[in-house]
Amino acid sequence: MTVVIKTLFELAEAVGGKVVGDRQVAIRKVAPIEEAGPGEITFLAHPRYQRYLETCRASAVIVSPTVLAGSGVVDRTYLVASDPYVAFAKILQIFAPAITHPQGISPLAQVASTAMLGNGVCIFPHVFVSDRAKIGGRTVLYPGVFLGERVEVGEDCVLHPNVVVREGCRIGSRVILHAGVVVGSDGFGYAGAGDHRVKIPQAGSVDIEDDVEIGANTTLDRATLGRTIIGRGTKIDNLVQIAHNVVIGENSIIAAQTGVAGSTQIGKDVTLAGQVGVVNHIQIGDGATIGPQSGVARSVPPGAVLSGGIAAAPHHEWLKVMTLLPQLPKLWSAVRALEKKLAEMLKGGEKEAKRHARP
Amino acid sequence: MTVVIKTLFELAEAVGGKVVGDRQVAIRKVAPIEEAGPGEITFLAHPRYQRYLETCRASAVIVSPTVLAGSGVVDRTYLVASDPYVAFAKILQIFAPAITHPQGISPLAQVASTAMLGNGVCIFPHVFVSDRAKIGGRTVLYPGVFLGERVEVGEDCVLHPNVVVREGCRIGSRVILHAGVVVGSDGFGYAGAGDHRVKIPQAGSVDIEDDVEIGANTTLDRATLGRTIIGRGTKIDNLVQIAHNVVIGENSIIAAQTGVAGSTQIGKDVTLAGQVGVVNHIQIGDGATIGPQSGVARSVPPGAVLSGGIAAAPHHEWLKVMTLLPQLPKLWSAVRALEKKLAEMLKGGEKEAKRHARP
Amino acid sequence: MTVVIKTLFELAEAVGGKVVGDRQVAIRKVAPIEEAGPGEITFLAHPRYQRYLETCRASAVIVSPTVLAGSGVVDRTYLVASDPYVAFAKILQIFAPAITHPQGISPLAQVASTAMLGNGVCIFPHVFVSDRAKIGGRTVLYPGVFLGERVEVGEDCVLHPNVVVREGCRIGSRVILHAGVVVGSDGFGYAGAGDHRVKIPQAGSVDIEDDVEIGANTTLDRATLGRTIIGRGTKIDNLVQIAHNVVIGENSIIAAQTGVAGSTQIGKDVTLAGQVGVVNHIQIGDGATIGPQSGVARSVPPGAVLSGGIAAAPHHEWLKVMTLLPQLPKLWSAVRALEKKLAEMLKGGEKEAKRHARP
Repeated sequence: MTVVIKTLFELAEAVGGKVVGDRQVAIRKVAPIEEAGPGEITFLAHPRYQRYLETCRASAVIVSPTVLAGSGVVDRTYLVASDPYVAFAKILQIFAPAITHPQGISPLAQVASTAMLGNGVCIFPHVFVSDRAKIGGRTVLYPGVFLGERVEVGEDCVLHPNVVVREGCRIGSRVILHAGVVVGSDGFGYAGAGDHRVKIPQAGSVDIEDDVEIGANTTLDRATLGRTIIGRGTKIDNLVQIAHNVVIGENSIIAAQTGVAGSTQIGKDVTLAGQVGVVNHIQIGDGATIGPQSGVARSVPPGAVLSGGIAAAPHHEWLKVMTLLPQLPKLWSAVRALEKKLAEMLKGGEKEAKRHARP
Repeated sequence: MTVVIKTLFELAEAVGGKVVGDRQVAIRKVAPIEEAGPGEITFLAHPRYQRYLETCRASAVIVSPTVLAGSGVVDRTYLVASDPYVAFAKILQIFAPAITHPQGISPLAQVASTAMLGNGVCIFPHVFVSDRAKIGGRTVLYPGVFLGERVEVGEDCVLHPNVVVREGCRIGSRVILHAGVVVGSDGFGYAGAGDHRVKIPQAGSVDIEDDVEIGANTTLDRATLGRTIIGRGTKIDNLVQIAHNVVIGENSIIAAQTGVAGSTQIGKDVTLAGQVGVVNHIQIGDGATIGPQSGVARSVPPGAVLSGGIAAAPHHEWLKVMTLLPQLPKLWSAVRALEKKLAEMLKGGEKEAKRHARP
Repeated sequence: MTVVIKTLFELAEAVGGKVVGDRQVAIRKVAPIEEAGPGEITFLAHPRYQRYLETCRASAVIVSPTVLAGSGVVDRTYLVASDPYVAFAKILQIFAPAITHPQGISPLAQVASTAMLGNGVCIFPHVFVSDRAKIGGRTVLYPGVFLGERVEVGEDCVLHPNVVVREGCRIGSRVILHAGVVVGSDGFGYAGAGDHRVKIPQAGSVDIEDDVEIGANTTLDRATLGRTIIGRGTKIDNLVQIAHNVVIGENSIIAAQTGVAGSTQIGKDVTLAGQVGVVNHIQIGDGATIGPQSGVARSVPPGAVLSGGIAAAPHHEWLKVMTLLPQLPKLWSAVRALEKKLAEMLKGGEKEAKRHARP
């Protein structure tokens, strides 16, 4: 491992920020605010950690102009950036140990003679590359990766151990597939019922566009006909299920354990939080945000912010709520009946009042 | 790839349908209705796509008699079938490119000398077959497949890359296990608590009967004692969890990300939608249907149709609902109090009325 | 397979229990109560199986003193234990067939020359061990296991087929990782938005302490900085998602398909049931229990018992509930309005009454 050392000024230049304090202080590492010491830069990740600022021993702290103005701590060196989180990410990239891969093809890998390989590819042992697969330059296939027939993988991709990409699927450039991802498994489709059920061949495939990252053990099914598509720049977390013929636009974010059912179309810049379920054959508009554990049963307009998750409550209180919830229709009827009765009483009361007033 | 060409009449014969229009038109492919062109057959998958019928350029459209009667489009060739979805599936099977596997055992696979292999098996590189495993005729083991000791796999199965079947588990014939499926992992069982927790050995196994298909990265735990059973013809989607000693009947359908807890028994022809959770030690009767994201906490009678999922709502409205939901018991008390008060008033009012009426 | 035979007395000694009946009866197997026959010991797992006790043909039944007192069946041999479930687990361990592994390193595995291996390790074919990895004595790596650079695995661990442990992660002793587990995949972290989104390098790692067991296809992400930690003795089920920087204490239990979001801290002896979702940056106190399918959105005090799951109801009734649920705020307003009106009427009525009473 080579150690990278930068002055704070160099880091500020690299991320488009500016230094308040000692520009020449040498930085060699990024560390969490509670742990950072001399030679290290840290980041005020969350307002709730503000209290750490006074006792923090880091050589520099990445902050926003707002936080700087409000910090009240003068005797300290800052790197001020308009988006400190982006600055933090870029500085981490500078210090992250570069993982070096042996170039070339392991003799313990099995690569079809008809496969086409770009320059500088790295193919680890126990990889299997099928006939007519294409692998772009500098792409890395870790041990246990399987590429089916005619699979295309672009340049500078990383396929972590035991990733499976089945026949005919296409993967763009700079794509990261984490360990255990399955691309192009058969969509879940059957016709008929009982003993007469017939498997619908899943004759389509999956397209993963450039700059997509997909989390560990996530599954993406091939289309019945046509293509399941993951748009450019979209990021998908672990253990997510993307069904056949789903189309996801650019730069969307899908958190862990979410499932999207067949043929649903998700726009660009959409956020699906964790454990969301989306039914089949609907559209989720650009920029929509869906809260954790929500069930999305109807199309969602662009920009909508939906929720459906229920916050856990003390068990004994929740039991009472759960008993009453199915009786909500009865409760409504009871309230409607009360309203009616009261209205009648008021009418009656007025009559009575009038009667008394009549003399 | 060989190209298959059929006349529409041949296809109609094959699926038990009939042609309305040109029986001799040559078909070489199935395509989605928006994309299909000459030489292609398509399928009206969903009433909402009916509008495509007029502009559709396909050489033939698979429809039901009802859709045909209602279509109003006369100048077009149809394949009419009582269940057009089944006809579509069968025609797709006719045109689906047959995947050919090299017969025999790769020298890069590790197959125990005590294993018994049927005729025409295909064992890819990096497969591991343990002692006394049995593999039926024409079964395909893709790269990275692991079979434990004494595992039995029937005929004409396909085990996709990186499938794991642990010791003693049995798999029937014509079973498809998609990439990353784990069969026979230890059930989740411990006795005692804290530092005195003891692992309960999971000494049973898993039985997967004929014609089962199991989706990518799904996990099926071995029984503590006895067997976890997946009945003949049952289809399970991706990322599903089947716990130890679960028994599932024939021809059931379990959608993605559903979980079934230990020792629960699920009948035949049951449908569990996506992200359903079923508690342990209950029965779900034959033909029951459980809607998406439902939690099933009690046994379900045959044929029941249950739901429990909540449709996502606008975030700000939902926040209000969520604040009030735990107060449902209070609301009921308030309504009951109102009813009582009103009843008293009415009684009082009657008395009052009587009093006034008395003289 | 060697057959183990023990007298009931020997078993009672081994588990700290005592025999009621024939101490010398020979036991060679554990079986479920419905199936057990002569030579077999069984266990009354659940009160609902009490009815099996009379007809049970087992040579001995493990029971608690309470069950024994209430059983009324005198002509039978019992092994009485204070915690019969623990006794059952230990006896199963005695009879569980010991799985024997060939010692040594398969020539079909790829082990870096800089890796350090303890005595008696078993490394199966198609395993990949990277530079400077350390593997403790008697640890077993099944086919398809991947260990990244500098990974440390303790003694007596079992890593089932296709487990992936990425660079720099540490695993204690006596740890069991089931098939397809991924340890140390990148946490899901990005800064910025849209086309300017930047990946935050996940420069930390994962620590799995001694005696942890992790279920099939579960994923544990590496920390952004620092470590994701799974405390000693904690047991995690299948298909669970543990996000970056999560810290879990000792002896906790996490059931299948649960997800814990980033930086959340979970105490010791905590139980999370199946399909629970826990948001990021919160604390769950020691000994807390969270019911199935609950969403935990706020920190939970020690010992709390929370629920949030909804029991599935008949579909048609549930549809009505679902229509009314979003109108809960309206219902409250209606009830509040009724209360106000009634209060006014009562006041008016009193006035009226007073007025009538006045003369």
